[in-house]
Amino acid sequence: MARAKNVLWIMCDQLRYDYLGCTGHPTLKTPNIDAMARRGVLFTKAYVQSPICGPSRMSFYTGRYMRSHGSHWNGWPLRVGEPTLGDHLNRIGVRNVLVGKTHMAPDLEGMKALGIPPESVIGVHVAECGFEPYERDDGLHPSGRPRPKYDEYLRSQGFEASNPWEHWANSGAADDGSLQNGWLLVHADKAARVPDEHSETPYMTRRAMDFISEAETDGRPWCLHLSYIKPHWPYIAPEPYASMYSTEDMIPAIRSMRERKNPHPVFGAYMDMRYSRNMARDEAREKVIPTYMGLITQIDDQMGVLMKFLEERGLLETTMIVFTSDHGDYLGDHWMGEKDLFHEQSAKIPLIIIDPSKEADATRGTQSDALVEGIDLAPTFVDYFGGKVPGHILEGRSLLPLLRGPTPGDWRRVAFSEYDYAMQDVRLKLNQPIERCRLFMVFDGRWKYIHASGFRPMLYDLETDPLEYVDRGDDPECAGIIARLQAELFDWALHPNDHITTPREKIANYADNQLQVKGGILIGIWDEQELAAIKDGIAQRAKM
Amino acid sequence: MARAKNVLWIMCDQLRYDYLGCTGHPTLKTPNIDAMARRGVLFTKAYVQSPICGPSRMSFYTGRYMRSHGSHWNGWPLRVGEPTLGDHLNRIGVRNVLVGKTHMAPDLEGMKALGIPPESVIGVHVAECGFEPYERDDGLHPSGRPRPKYDEYLRSQGFEASNPWEHWANSGAADDGSLQNGWLLVHADKAARVPDEHSETPYMTRRAMDFISEAETDGRPWCLHLSYIKPHWPYIAPEPYASMYSTEDMIPAIRSMRERKNPHPVFGAYMDMRYSRNMARDEAREKVIPTYMGLITQIDDQMGVLMKFLEERGLLETTMIVFTSDHGDYLGDHWMGEKDLFHEQSAKIPLIIIDPSKEADATRGTQSDALVEGIDLAPTFVDYFGGKVPGHILEGRSLLPLLRGPTPGDWRRVAFSEYDYAMQDVRLKLNQPIERCRLFMVFDGRWKYIHASGFRPMLYDLETDPLEYVDRGDDPECAGIIARLQAELFDWALHPNDHITTPREKIANYADNQLQVKGGILIGIWDEQELAAIKDGIAQRAKM
Repeated sequence: MARAKNVLWIMCDQLRYDYLGCTGHPTLKTPNIDAMARRGVLFTKAYVQSPICGPSRMSFYTGRYMRSHGSHWNGWPLRVGEPTLGDHLNRIGVRNVLVGKTHMAPDLEGMKALGIPPESVIGVHVAECGFEPYERDDGLHPSGRPRPKYDEYLRSQGFEASNPWEHWANSGAADDGSLQNGWLLVHADKAARVPDEHSETPYMTRRAMDFISEAETDGRPWCLHLSYIKPHWPYIAPEPYASMYSTEDMIPAIRSMRERKNPHPVFGAYMDMRYSRNMARDEAREKVIPTYMGLITQIDDQMGVLMKFLEERGLLETTMIVFTSDHGDYLGDHWMGEKDLFHEQSAKIPLIIIDPSKEADATRGTQSDALVEGIDLAPTFVDYFGGKVPGHILEGRSLLPLLRGPTPGDWRRVAFSEYDYAMQDVRLKLNQPIERCRLFMVFDGRWKYIHASGFRPMLYDLETDPLEYVDRGDDPECAGIIARLQAELFDWALHPNDHITTPREKIANYADNQLQVKGGILIGIWDEQELAAIKDGIAQRAKM
Repeated sequence: MARAKNVLWIMCDQLRYDYLGCTGHPTLKTPNIDAMARRGVLFTKAYVQSPICGPSRMSFYTGRYMRSHGSHWNGWPLRVGEPTLGDHLNRIGVRNVLVGKTHMAPDLEGMKALGIPPESVIGVHVAECGFEPYERDDGLHPSGRPRPKYDEYLRSQGFEASNPWEHWANSGAADDGSLQNGWLLVHADKAARVPDEHSETPYMTRRAMDFISEAETDGRPWCLHLSYIKPHWPYIAPEPYASMYSTEDMIPAIRSMRERKNPHPVFGAYMDMRYSRNMARDEAREKVIPTYMGLITQIDDQMGVLMKFLEERGLLETTMIVFTSDHGDYLGDHWMGEKDLFHEQSAKIPLIIIDPSKEADATRGTQSDALVEGIDLAPTFVDYFGGKVPGHILEGRSLLPLLRGPTPGDWRRVAFSEYDYAMQDVRLKLNQPIERCRLFMVFDGRWKYIHASGFRPMLYDLETDPLEYVDRGDDPECAGIIARLQAELFDWALHPNDHITTPREKIANYADNQLQVKGGILIGIWDEQELAAIKDGIAQRAKM
């Protein structure tokens, strides 16, 4: 009997593209991830649909652009009835299971209006954006919020506190052993107060393995989303990772004084955010970056554990494995902290896909420079499981053809990403109306065009300026380029997948088969003779 | 005790703007509607969001553009969870009641996925797009479809048949008394086979009065949508209306030979539709138009009955009354039948609003030439009942200010309308992909710009060419106008009300009050001193 296919979809949080060995980092050690790239395809131009957790993830989990799913910010509920990957997979008998973070906020008001009890099977499915939550853990647990299971785990290991997550796993230990607030950048160089094995990344890896073991007896195929919180802040790593890298291992800051001279107002406002001003200081970079690197190597070690586990159970032969991230981290590059804008450090993500099928043998170990979007994963998974991709709902495209041969000739010409800064101080600084804090990226592989509602556009030429130092958005010489990319954005904006209740097949069938006349609705027909001729034509066609 | 406010929202189907006495028709008699215009405001530039029943109505019933509600065609279900006028009214204790047509198709698949039983209170609310269906009747009942209550009514009056709606009310009687198929244009001059009192318009008027009587004992305020099928086809009127108008009462056809010379491909394809070719013939116009006029005068007579009924019960003093339509009818103008495109005959509707409030006394009997859209009614009603208009969901604007004073200075500069011809033969003729059959109108009160995906735009100047004979979409002299209106469309397309789960107040409150820091999520803060200063700042601000 052929074994069921599965998908193991690993996502890191805030892991930028260039912080892996296989994507070119000169000192960072990620041998296990590099080995995964050799067994699959590494995508070198993969972009998220919004460079911030919540909206980016809602795009991954729905296969739809932010303008379609409507969740523009962390904590903005995904509306009830918005179709998710889980809906599409469940329909073809595949479990869609979560271990870790989604950043989903349930639309409680919408659920109440439709009479959906939150604790019911459907209620949980809706509230968890289509996932069966084996263990949901969004990874940020300040006191006063609902507690994660991980708290209980730490307590069971003897790590007592009112908030074990913060007190032990995400606080630093000073040389004198005293507790240091792990939220603060100044303490990023301190080691976590738990040993590696009890920190979050190994814990979540074990939880994933627990699920996979249990699923063997269940028998149904599964898509497991293993969604780590790290290397996202709090930037606190346990030993040995806390001391693994030093400032000598850091790559130089990617930034130019030119960027600070008369910048685009939106870019200027972001450079002026507290977290940007702080991260732009060498002192902060030197505290944060070695720890960020350590957290990545910790993930890499866990990839080693996980791949060995899968291999021992013979699951590598049937399981598609995806390794990716939800967006990057500026780390002081471009005088920025966090993510928010569309520079490569922020909007571009690592993406490795291992397709175990024989058809994919030819591409193993290769790189693809096709323009790929986060929304492509949902259709890829449906396609991998043999389901029909609902093209009127999903706005991404299946990557299976790219995993099994050359990029199709009609592949997308541009990638899109969006951002809404209504919830940030930037809105107040720029004095923008709440409904007009919108940014849109259109990238054609060379030119990166950014539309900013209410302002002039930004434009970068990654061929002549790969580090994105020169904003040519007001350069008259670039008017033609801008017009072309603006036309792409215009066309995209006018054609969203908004009619999710009506599949294209139904539309085609209706016009092609004159269903209106067949249903007895006769529009503008002159007389009995004309009606008879029409009916005769339909009958003739049916015989053909 | 002050009596509860109510709204009586009367909608005709396929009634074009210029077929009323008060909008300038020289021979058509509509004294009761004209009297309503004298008691309220007549809007002279009101446009539907799509010139076809289903999508236009879904925009009226949701207060949202087609691109937002996603129901692009008759029978495309409005998705579960799409917020409706009924949701907004129910929340403030107002019943939203239907007598007549909506053209709503329930999203049964979506309801099933969310576990909503169609027969439950919530299920009916969802399936009826937010209406409490006192009597739902979409007005088109060929054999083989579910039967309306009206069938039973006809039978109770002795009009027996397997399909009484078609057999008696919508078939014509030839001179020899024989039945003639009322769907066919050639029979539009025959009288219906029922007397006036048993035809659909008086029947539905009585059903509305039944509801209003019953509602008096209920006591809750109501919004009653009285939604007539006529003067929509089948173009069959009972006597005396069938013989009321002759060809001498017809206004001349609005069309020019110039329109047929090298037309825009989309316009060309529509002129070539069967119903257009038929309605462009004088013979068809002479059959149809006098009957169309008779059906309108029949509605007018029923307005007389209805207003008298309201007056006798003292309801005129508290009831806002709206008279409008869901789109027009070309009637052979521009060589077209039906609706579909954006000429004034199709996209423009009559709209009369009587606001009984004292504040509205100054505007009684006036006309407003402000650009108004169908989606403005939902917020107008919420506003009239004293509710807070949810600006992050509704895309229209309340008309109350225009009913009570001059047009606000920041009123919209352009009106939008949309159309999707994927379900029509036009798609096959033009060989367009299903997802790209989109048309968009942008009208600024003078220039009417139409974006047609895949084709050049169309453009009409209603100042120099009020009859819209000259398409200047390829006139180089108009490049500046086109660029300006295209920019309006671009901006509109980029800023839909897609985030329906998150009100603007919540967004404002979040950034303004630093809720992130208050919630314990500390991003990019350097050290304890900086954190203390931030918290101090928040505390200081709270005291102010």
